[in-house]
Amino acid sequence: MYIEIDFNSDEAIYIQLRNQIIYGIATSKIQEGDNLPSVRELADIIGINMHTVNKAYTILKQEGYVKLDRRRGAVIAIDLNKLQAIEDMKDALRVVLAKAICKNINCEEAHKIINEVFDEFERG
Amino acid sequence: MYIEIDFNSDEAIYIQLRNQIIYGIATSKIQEGDNLPSVRELADIIGINMHTVNKAYTILKQEGYVKLDRRRGAVIAIDLNKLQAIEDMKDALRVVLAKAICKNINCEEAHKIINEVFDEFERG
Repeated sequence: MYIEIDFNSDEAIYIQLRNQIIYGIATSKIQEGDNLPSVRELADIIGINMHTVNKAYTILKQEGYVKLDRRRGAVIAIDLNKLQAIEDMKDALRVVLAKAICKNINCEEAHKIINEVFDEFERG
Repeated sequence: MYIEIDFNSDEAIYIQLRNQIIYGIATSKIQEGDNLPSVRELADIIGINMHTVNKAYTILKQEGYVKLDRRRGAVIAIDLNKLQAIEDMKDALRVVLAKAICKNINCEEAHKIINEVFDEFERG
C-alpha cells in the first residue's frame, strides 16, 4: 500500500491518511481481511506521530472500514450497512452540491463529474 | 437567515457555520450582495466564540463565497471561477465516491442520490 501525505495541505494529516486508506480499498489495492501496518510501523514509514495514525485508524473503525483486533491490529473489515452508507453519502453530498449550486454548476454537469471520478477509480 | 448549529456534532462549529451559509446561498435565502451579520452579532446570536465566526468567514472568503469589506463587513460575493469550482468539486467527490465504492454503492445509485439531493435544494 502506497500512502501519500501532503504536509503542506490544509487538510489534517489523520484525515489524509484515512482518505488514502479508503482510496486503497476503493481501488482494490487493499482488501477485506488485509492487515494494515501497525500504528508504530506506519508512523515510522510516513514520519508522523503515532497518535495521528491512531486517530486515523479509530475513525476508520467508527466509519466501518476496519476492525481493531487485539492480536492482528487493524484489519480491513467493511461494514456493508448500505442504508447507513447511503445516508452518510447524502450528508456528504449536501455540502458538495450546495457549493456546486452556488458556483453555477448544474445537475447535468454534476452527473458528468461523477462519471469522470468513477472512471478514475475504475482505471485504479 | 436561519443558522442551525449542532453542538453535539463531531463536525467543528466553524465548519457547520460555513456549511449553513453555503446552504443559505444554494437555496437563495441569502444572495449576492447581501450582508452577513457582524462577527460579534452572529457570535452572540448563536452563543459561540467570536473567533469561531471569524474562522468561518475567513474560509468563506478563501473559498470564494464572501468578500470582507472594511465598512460593510462580510458581504456575499460569489467567485464564479467555474473551472476552479469543478476541480474543487472533483476533489471533494473523490473521497465521497471512494467511500461509496467501498460500501458497494454503484455508479447508478450514486446518480440517483445526486438527483435526490438536487431535488432537496430545489424545494429549498
